[in-house]
Formats: sequence, C-alpha cells, structure tokens
Amino acid sequence: MFTNRRDVRIEWGYCDPADIVYYPRYFEIFDASTARLIEAATGMSKRQLVTKYGVVGTPMVDTRARFSMPTTYGDEVVVESAFTKIGRSSFDVLHRLLKNGELAVEGFETRVWVARDPGNPDKIKSQPIPQEVVDCFSRA
Amino acid sequence: MFTNRRDVRIEWGYCDPADIVYYPRYFEIFDASTARLIEAATGMSKRQLVTKYGVVGTPMVDTRARFSMPTTYGDEVVVESAFTKIGRSSFDVLHRLLKNGELAVEGFETRVWVARDPGNPDKIKSQPIPQEVVDCFSRA
Amino acid sequence: MFTNRRDVRIEWGYCDPADIVYYPRYFEIFDASTARLIEAATGMSKRQLVTKYGVVGTPMVDTRARFSMPTTYGDEVVVESAFTKIGRSSFDVLHRLLKNGELAVEGFETRVWVARDPGNPDKIKSQPIPQEVVDCFSRA
Amino acid sequence: MFTNRRDVRIEWGYCDPADIVYYPRYFEIFDASTARLIEAATGMSKRQLVTKYGVVGTPMVDTRARFSMPTTYGDEVVVESAFTKIGRSSFDVLHRLLKNGELAVEGFETRVWVARDPGNPDKIKSQPIPQEVVDCFSRA
Repeated sequence: MFTNRRDVRIEWGYCDPADIVYYPRYFEIFDASTARLIEAATGMSKRQLVTKYGVVGTPMVDTRARFSMPTTYGDEVVVESAFTKIGRSSFDVLHRLLKNGELAVEGFETRVWVARDPGNPDKIKSQPIPQEVVDCFSRA
Repeated sequence: MFTNRRDVRIEWGYCDPADIVYYPRYFEIFDASTARLIEAATGMSKRQLVTKYGVVGTPMVDTRARFSMPTTYGDEVVVESAFTKIGRSSFDVLHRLLKNGELAVEGFETRVWVARDPGNPDKIKSQPIPQEVVDCFSRA
Repeated sequence: MFTNRRDVRIEWGYCDPADIVYYPRYFEIFDASTARLIEAATGMSKRQLVTKYGVVGTPMVDTRARFSMPTTYGDEVVVESAFTKIGRSSFDVLHRLLKNGELAVEGFETRVWVARDPGNPDKIKSQPIPQEVVDCFSRA
Repeated sequence: MFTNRRDVRIEWGYCDPADIVYYPRYFEIFDASTARLIEAATGMSKRQLVTKYGVVGTPMVDTRARFSMPTTYGDEVVVESAFTKIGRSSFDVLHRLLKNGELAVEGFETRVWVARDPGNPDKIKSQPIPQEVVDCFSRA
C-alpha cells in the first residue's frame, strides 16, 4: 500500500531531563507523519479533503508505540509511514522511525474517517471512506 | 481588579535536558491560568461564555514572560493571575508564578475578545467586551 | 496491586481543531499519572528516588492507548492508574481515564527501571527494581 | 548580524479549537529557530558546543511575542531569525514569522550563555560568551 518517508529533526524541546525524547512527542511526530502520508497519497491537503468530502478529521481509535532505541536533540531521523489496512470507515498506519538506518521507534495506528453528519452539521460521525480515497491509500 | 490563584505541579514532561522547565510550557500554564481567572471572575465556564456571548476565544495579541528563577519537576508552584487593564475589546492579564513564595516567572498578556461575526457566522472578529463581563473582570 | 486516582482538568490547549483532546496529550496525562502512582506507592518523590536508588527515569518500552469517547476543554476527568505487572527490571501500568464515570481512554505501559551504570556513571542501563520498591508497587 | 531562515509547516497538532495555532507553540517554533541560528552561525551543533565550551544551554531570561495574523494547519511559513544584540554573557534574537511574505508573528528573546561551573561541575552559571562565538554571531 501507499508509503511515504519524511525527515524529522529532533529538537531540544522534545527532550526531557533524561536527555532523550519525551515519548508523547513521538506521537506528535507520527500524527504529522500520517497527515503527510494522506496528503501524499491523495494529492490533496487536509483543507481540501475537508472541503471536498466534509471530513472533519481522522481521530485515533487505537495507537501503540514500541521504543527500541532512544533519540535525542540534534538527531536527524527518518519516518517511514505506510497504510497497512483499509477498512470501510477506518484504516491502519504503521510508522517506522529510523536513526542511522536502524529502527528506533515503531508506531501503530487505527484511525476513523469522520465527517459532519449530513443530517445534523453540528454533529460528526464515522463515514465510509470514499472509494477514490481508498484507491489512493491502496496503490503502491 | 479580579485576582485568582491556583496551584500547579511541575511535571517531568515540562522539563528539558537542562533539567528545568522548557519555557514554552510556562505559556501553557499561563494560558490555563487565564482560563481559570475568567471562569472565577464570571462564574461561567468557557463553554457557557461561548453559548451566552458567542465568544470564540480570547486570542493573544502580545505576550511576554520574564524568568528569574528556574523550576523543575516535582516543584509545587503557585500562579497568581490578575486583570490589570480592561479595554473596549481587549484586556491585560499579569501572572506571577511563585516557588516557595518567591517570584520565579512573570507573564504579561494582552488578549482580544473575539466572537462570531453576527453578519457572517463563518468569520470571527473582535467585539466590545460585554459590560457585565467588564464588571466581573473589574471587581476586587 | 497499588492503585492511585487523580483528577485532571482538560485544558483548551490540549484540544485540536476538531474540538477534542489532541491524542498525544493523553500520553502526557498518563505519564504524569504514572509519576504520581510511583510517588503514592513509595512515599518518595522522583527526586528522592533518584538520590536513594540512582534511578534516572522509567523510560517507556511499549505503550498503547484506546480511545472510546472524546473529551474536550472544561471536562473534569478522573485517571485511575494501577500497576498490573512487576517484573525484574520492568513494570506495567494500566490507566483508565473516566468522564462522568464512563471509560473514555485506556492507556497501557511497559516501563523499565533505569539507573546510572555503577561502572560508568555517564551511562545508564536497566537495573533490577529494588525489592522494597517492588513491595511498594505490589501492595494493595 | 548573523541571520538565518527556515521553512516551517504548521501542523494540525499545533492548532486549538479556534482553528489557529495555539500560541505557546510559536515559542517552540522560535526556540528551535534559535537553535538553528546558533548552529548556522557557528557551524557547530549544540552537542559540539556542549563538548567544546561546556555550555549547558542558552536559557531564556525574557521573551515576548506579538501576533498580527493567525496561522493554521497546512500553512507553510518562513521564520527569519537574527541576532540583534550580543552582550558579555547574554544575547538577543529577533524572529519574524512570515505567511505569504507578510508578518504574522514577531518573537523577541534575551538568552544567557550558561555553562558548568568550572569550580563545581554540578552547578551551572552564566559565563562570558567566548570571543570566537561572539564573532560568529556578529558577522553579517
């Protein structure tokens, strides 16, 4: 399925008194990586997706991270992100954060495609992922 | 003018590799302190203010902080917050973060009262602060 | 095993444009909850643990969260945290974040007890959790 | 004096329910911008500065930001950072965050050069900025 890579620099402000990344920051990095993944797959910005499909966001249902190697400020890491499963109204993403080519952190996500409720625009609810978006996520 | 105090505990995750609070976190602490100050002054939650006055938020126009003493995880600090000026559609707040009774950080804020534009609900614009809110902010 | 509860208020700054908590913030909340859990269990602050046992931190090895209900600013939630497994040099924690008594988010953690390497104080490595700490974590 | 520019993308997670950047995030952006400015000026990473000069960090003494235009997720902004004053053991930085070439946020900083106390390596204190670093900061 569709894969994207991006470079991330670990900043001083991401790190804690143990001199390594404060782990909630990895979830911020992965969240931004998923945004880039979706944009690269669809060729549309989130704003454009909002306008075109009424999608409000892709809230997380379940996420996990495994930490095998610390990173610290000044490190230049690579995040490889890929769709691993596309369901009717949800999808899975796998992130692999690499430092000098070695796996440092793995992130797993299950997210839901959420849009304004057509019957009540003040409400949001999960919606089937549009087929053309599924096609974009699924291509190699 | 109206004053509020609250206790804040400095968390591990607020601190950086120098073993002291990463300074942007102080602005998070002050932002939450202003929210409490407004609630204490008006007796209304932000949600209630949104509903009653259509206020969308109180975005910052100008903010400053001066740091005289570091704080670190485990510290129990006090934040004293007070309105210092109430204008037509803006107001100033002063925060004093105290550690063991001594001033550690001072924060200064000028914020604007912003509401949905009555003529165009998709837009927001600064609005005169309602007189009853001014009265709440101004009382001792 | 040992359990702790604490009240957490959801702040404006924790929320994203979907008007709900930006999920990495839940990991910040859980991290602070684990700090309180350890302190309540041992009766010692993290600083005291550092001094007494040379522990540098309790870095995360594996963490997961499942989100069943959103929370937003102004919500007053409760976080119930408990040790669920104590190993030789690692331990598991379960967090249950409750909104109006209903489960909103579950967090799972496996952390390692890490101390300065006695043979090389510039290095850190996992260490057996001291028996008296194990006893504190294990008591009801 | 020395100037640096960098591109920053505004992420979803930087934004709050008003759909604009949560202002403490601008201080994170500026902090990272100062790190890049120092690196670009000296040709050394922070780690290298730590090793060469024993500098522990450049803690903030006084910082201010003025907000003239909101930014939101998906915006690609530019941060122009420049030294504006070099003192004996402190220095000033000005940041200008531009959106489509227009000034959105200005940041002002006064920071101190802090190093391990040679007489007591457990302590830190402000130190004169080394002359070769002053020269790097001052060049056009």
